[in-house]
Amino acid sequence: MSHYQNRQWIYARRPETEVGIEHYDLTEQTLDSDQLGDDEILVKARYWSVDPYMRIQQANHTTWEAPHPVGAVQGGGMVGQVIATGSKVSGLAASDWVNAYTGWQEYAVCPSDEAIRLDPDTAPVTTALGVLGMPGRTAYFGLLEAGRPQAGETVVVSGAAGAVGSIVGQIARLKGCRVIGIAGSDAKCTQLVEELGFDAAINYREHPGQADMQQAFARHCPDGIDIYFDNVGGVITDAVMECINLRARIIVCGQISQYSGQLDQPEMGPRFLHRILYARATIQGILSRDYSERHAQMLAAMAPWVKHGDIRYQETFMDGFASLPTALAALFAGANTGKMIVRA
Amino acid sequence: MSHYQNRQWIYARRPETEVGIEHYDLTEQTLDSDQLGDDEILVKARYWSVDPYMRIQQANHTTWEAPHPVGAVQGGGMVGQVIATGSKVSGLAASDWVNAYTGWQEYAVCPSDEAIRLDPDTAPVTTALGVLGMPGRTAYFGLLEAGRPQAGETVVVSGAAGAVGSIVGQIARLKGCRVIGIAGSDAKCTQLVEELGFDAAINYREHPGQADMQQAFARHCPDGIDIYFDNVGGVITDAVMECINLRARIIVCGQISQYSGQLDQPEMGPRFLHRILYARATIQGILSRDYSERHAQMLAAMAPWVKHGDIRYQETFMDGFASLPTALAALFAGANTGKMIVRA
Repeated sequence: MSHYQNRQWIYARRPETEVGIEHYDLTEQTLDSDQLGDDEILVKARYWSVDPYMRIQQANHTTWEAPHPVGAVQGGGMVGQVIATGSKVSGLAASDWVNAYTGWQEYAVCPSDEAIRLDPDTAPVTTALGVLGMPGRTAYFGLLEAGRPQAGETVVVSGAAGAVGSIVGQIARLKGCRVIGIAGSDAKCTQLVEELGFDAAINYREHPGQADMQQAFARHCPDGIDIYFDNVGGVITDAVMECINLRARIIVCGQISQYSGQLDQPEMGPRFLHRILYARATIQGILSRDYSERHAQMLAAMAPWVKHGDIRYQETFMDGFASLPTALAALFAGANTGKMIVRA
Repeated sequence: MSHYQNRQWIYARRPETEVGIEHYDLTEQTLDSDQLGDDEILVKARYWSVDPYMRIQQANHTTWEAPHPVGAVQGGGMVGQVIATGSKVSGLAASDWVNAYTGWQEYAVCPSDEAIRLDPDTAPVTTALGVLGMPGRTAYFGLLEAGRPQAGETVVVSGAAGAVGSIVGQIARLKGCRVIGIAGSDAKCTQLVEELGFDAAINYREHPGQADMQQAFARHCPDGIDIYFDNVGGVITDAVMECINLRARIIVCGQISQYSGQLDQPEMGPRFLHRILYARATIQGILSRDYSERHAQMLAAMAPWVKHGDIRYQETFMDGFASLPTALAALFAGANTGKMIVRA
């Protein structure tokens, strides 16, 4: 019989605006591997996912689901290794790498059929949290199905240095599009262009108003904008609306600029539906889980791209279980390039 | 040789806000039927169309096309009778009824292939300007293709007493939907329910704010809103966004509440793209002309509905060529029920 001291980050208090460590409590419990159910596995977490959607779930009203319950372990994706398996578990053995949605805790018991076995020889295991995981699936289906990119079209991606945006831009490039990324620092912009192959990148902090941003689009998108993959919302999106082409497709994947506000009292912005009318454009909201059943289809396309370097991915690591809430706050401050991951 | 004194309404000055007679000049020219080209017809107008899009074209910037030129006859649909035909015209003869886009003038010369012959025995000729014309086509394809209504869904239509909205609601009813119309008077609301078969109607003037309108939706749309056919925009649309269901479809057909403002400085409103994200909803702008090639398809479906009374249409007539600019202003004041037409 083995005991494991399991630290957990409990989501304890709803943030009014920015989320931070003050909204979490660190607790500890003891896990006993002998109490594992027949179909369960015990996993030791090695990497935790830190994602923008976590803040959405902290709104005090229904978003795409009921709010994350206060007093429970913060939900989230995890990559770790199997320590023990129940008597009826097949296909998973001790020390196997798995990906599961077990949240912010150091150990977890989970049904074996909710864990996905990872082959470290195929791709680094952390890619299961990023380019070959939920963010990659979002980028792949969001761009290709909601966006329907055609060679020669101009694609603008906000949050372009993030886990989803950085992949969206590269897929669009593979499809023959001109791709302009928007990010929050010159360093990120340089990376987008020099390392990820974006055609251009715009530092939104240097274009703080809508008019400024429109001027940047006028320079970088001389033929207008055909596809806008929006992770950010707010002023950037306002500017895009003035530059869209006939039958533009706008994919709303995230609105990170708005999450920390009071969503019951949304920020005010200029109305733009007349632009959608004139351009006969479409706006479509997408969510990764809508494509969960087709994860294998994404992997079949993306894994070779990643393997051959057609798509490069970036990861930002913060170290230590204790840093999880801080990492989430850092995500909203734009501290990450690519996927934000906390490493045990 | 015959001469015709042809009065014309010239669009002479751009409105800053509301359009009115002060933006038009009445002029007169002489038309000579002997100067008709071989392929041309001379038409005497009997009915003129008055449409919301006319105000959009008066914006001083590109909308879906360049602005309507100042100093030219106000464009628009017309139903009239052939007076004379060129030597090579076939299929059209004197006194035939036709529909053509010849604008606000009493007589017009137009290429015979730009005139559609109307059979007064099939349907009253004025329907070519309304239920069986451009507005009917907009309603038919906009609702069925962009909206994809399913039986049992809840459909909200703004501008429900207008030429397009009144048809949209009835088609949605034929498809088995619950239909709630929004209009600007109790009389219009009563008509929508009692004459056109809407399930309920909301007088937006009695619900002037977003919160008021949301309360009305809570009462009339207890299962939320699946489809919103928007002719109006503004506060009504803001309220809808708070009530949309998973995978709601929002069709932007018009934004009449916004046309008379300064579109270079749009009105401010609450941001709502997070709602589109949560609901994985779509917004699609539509324009009648996008379906022009499929006009016959619409007629094949709609003409029998109209003939059998499955779809009823309403027309508001103002009398006399001189009243055209006044009729346009009246349209924006909500003076019409159904299609606004000026009768010679």
